[in-house]
Amino acid sequence: MLTDQYELTMLQAALRSGAAHRRCTFEVFARRLPQGRRFGVVAGTGRLLEGLETFRFRRNELDFLAERGIGDDDTLDFLSSYRFSGDISGYAEGEIYLPHSPVLQVSATFAEACLLETFVLSVLNHDSAVASAAARMVIAAGGAPESGGRPCVEMGSRRTHEFSATAAARAAGVVGFAATSNLEAGRSWGVPTLGTAAHAFTLLHDSEEDAFAAQVETFGPGTTLLVDTYDVEAAVRKAVEIAGSTLGAVRLDSGDLVAQAHEVRKLLDSLGNSATRIIVSSDLDEYAIAGLAAAPVDAYGVGTRLVTGSGAPTASMVYKLVQRQDSKGAEVPVEKASPNKASAGGKKQALRNLDADGRAAAEIISTDATPEHSGYSGRNLHVPLVVSGSVTPGTTGPEGVRAAAQRHRASVEELPAAAQRLSEGEPVIPTVFV
Amino acid sequence: MLTDQYELTMLQAALRSGAAHRRCTFEVFARRLPQGRRFGVVAGTGRLLEGLETFRFRRNELDFLAERGIGDDDTLDFLSSYRFSGDISGYAEGEIYLPHSPVLQVSATFAEACLLETFVLSVLNHDSAVASAAARMVIAAGGAPESGGRPCVEMGSRRTHEFSATAAARAAGVVGFAATSNLEAGRSWGVPTLGTAAHAFTLLHDSEEDAFAAQVETFGPGTTLLVDTYDVEAAVRKAVEIAGSTLGAVRLDSGDLVAQAHEVRKLLDSLGNSATRIIVSSDLDEYAIAGLAAAPVDAYGVGTRLVTGSGAPTASMVYKLVQRQDSKGAEVPVEKASPNKASAGGKKQALRNLDADGRAAAEIISTDATPEHSGYSGRNLHVPLVVSGSVTPGTTGPEGVRAAAQRHRASVEELPAAAQRLSEGEPVIPTVFV
Repeated sequence: MLTDQYELTMLQAALRSGAAHRRCTFEVFARRLPQGRRFGVVAGTGRLLEGLETFRFRRNELDFLAERGIGDDDTLDFLSSYRFSGDISGYAEGEIYLPHSPVLQVSATFAEACLLETFVLSVLNHDSAVASAAARMVIAAGGAPESGGRPCVEMGSRRTHEFSATAAARAAGVVGFAATSNLEAGRSWGVPTLGTAAHAFTLLHDSEEDAFAAQVETFGPGTTLLVDTYDVEAAVRKAVEIAGSTLGAVRLDSGDLVAQAHEVRKLLDSLGNSATRIIVSSDLDEYAIAGLAAAPVDAYGVGTRLVTGSGAPTASMVYKLVQRQDSKGAEVPVEKASPNKASAGGKKQALRNLDADGRAAAEIISTDATPEHSGYSGRNLHVPLVVSGSVTPGTTGPEGVRAAAQRHRASVEELPAAAQRLSEGEPVIPTVFV
Repeated sequence: MLTDQYELTMLQAALRSGAAHRRCTFEVFARRLPQGRRFGVVAGTGRLLEGLETFRFRRNELDFLAERGIGDDDTLDFLSSYRFSGDISGYAEGEIYLPHSPVLQVSATFAEACLLETFVLSVLNHDSAVASAAARMVIAAGGAPESGGRPCVEMGSRRTHEFSATAAARAAGVVGFAATSNLEAGRSWGVPTLGTAAHAFTLLHDSEEDAFAAQVETFGPGTTLLVDTYDVEAAVRKAVEIAGSTLGAVRLDSGDLVAQAHEVRKLLDSLGNSATRIIVSSDLDEYAIAGLAAAPVDAYGVGTRLVTGSGAPTASMVYKLVQRQDSKGAEVPVEKASPNKASAGGKKQALRNLDADGRAAAEIISTDATPEHSGYSGRNLHVPLVVSGSVTPGTTGPEGVRAAAQRHRASVEELPAAAQRLSEGEPVIPTVFV
């Protein structure tokens, strides 16, 4: 039922006209990147494939539709036995995308493929928006921890819909965030989770000392103490007094983080706590993280700006019919001619063209089955995700997230240096239509 | 599991320190409205209360936590029998809020109330952000249809997370949207649903005529035909030819909507189809809707900008401990002193102060149990939502949405005329702390 009603009305009318059984290819792409962004990141593919396996219309759903008069008997019959039996290929999860990159291709009868539109776009638009923003935060933090960057921790669950939150935590994991506060993301996709305390915990106790003592007694001195409920300097002194020299970390969640980080670092060092780390949070985005690069900070907690895509909460991807059978069974390209919303017909191939140094040079999009013949070569970006209704192993669950994280790292490393710039600019490589 | 890990670590440490059983009050509020907005709308309350009834930790969840080493035996024991048994009061769903309005108050032991933070904020932040944006779109459309405005239809499911989509459709229903494309919102909350066809349906057929004929044959001439796949004028002529004078509506989804609406209206009238309505969609927001006010348009389809809160995708509400028992059992106010994030201690009362004409004049917030004694009177904004763990009847399901829509209409009508302005400005009434 996570579906727009028009998917069902189109199905009904197409069953009636007979066109429902024409074999079709739909493609997912974004006409443009969010304002000034250099690249986008495909994310959500694994979630999409997990959802596909349970995309069914059961008794409850069919009863609701019948009650509302949505769909005639033929339509409800079709829905009751619906299982996607077609093929899906697309960019591997974690891959970079650019304007017009055909990130997903769904090939099936119109009836089977049309029904998936809403769900496919919901997943890819949300998760790719978050991943695309989060990838810039990881760049600002100096890269993923494996590449020597400072760890970023996702903690935005409280600022977005409860299920968006788990998907956002997953998307952040794909692009190199080290952990999340969201427990469900840990359970469903194996994302490392963490969390210690909010200001409420300090306020609950009769004094800050009581709160710190309770936390250290429970979790040991390696815990992270939140030191900005009252006076930061006094709190750091108390924290060190209570936890000793092995205090794990202190967290700053308000005020001028750059100045405070310097002061707290100096204070910690002077107290003999040079191994105690400093974690900062408080409305961080890629720019604030970059602004903290020279400050003595060990990890970033990122919330609101991550889950809302740092100004671009949707990836604006669309799902367009590009090819279908005609009345004689031949597959023909189709495209609409609406002003500002034109799209190119025909099933596409996509290559990441590389220069002699192995750097990405262009996104080659072609309706030619073998763009190599047009003089272009490179990395074929389409991988099989579903073959005759069966999901490719390794693409879902924790395994899918791990593979996506690996793909993402490799794809970012392949990009020209301009990809690392946070300032507004053009897409990092051009999209070339062959 | 739709919960931040720190809720559980705080619980564990508080169980250990003994403070977990102190009676507490947490309040939800937003420090400010999104940039330039005149008011906000509380939404999601019904969803929150529905979720509360299933907020449990079952075997699966407890096993996951134990495996990850999150929570000791006492914590897991507590969680295994967790059921919220406290009280929740707050602004009725659909009510207007302003900076610092205490929109929700949760009173229970720390252990019980702390666990709800993430879920409560996820729901209220998302749904209130969408409702606050959608309320402005309804204003731009001339008010809810009952008040003579042009109907707005929510069709943003494809641009946001699949479950955010259903919640967004519900939130739009609360503020006066006439319908949604989202089927699940229809099933769960009785929101009217609708939908006809996308461009793919036209492209699927050998000609636009074939597509229109299939749709009219299936749904009758009262259907809505999408006329901008190829040439709008030619499509309108075909539509009228096929459906006749009782053609329900045509939809325009691209290009210059104002100019096209005028042309299409003229054409329809000249063909004798003066009763055929014109529906427009395509990146509409409150400003685009206002810009179409003088155009001959009959309904608005709103997608992306609705589900992303029209620039403000989260309401930035926080959940703060404001009062708790001390070691002697007395309830004392608490507040933190962090720079830029200070909050006022003590459990609040809230009144909407009205002038002699019954217009809202100020938001009165007081820690005094009876602000009337301080010389202020008005409408008490807090209603009981949960009493000793039992959810107030009429607040959930389709009934809750209907009540919220009614409350919303009354609250908007009570506001000064400046509330109708879309331009940036100050909150429409001041927040007064007594």
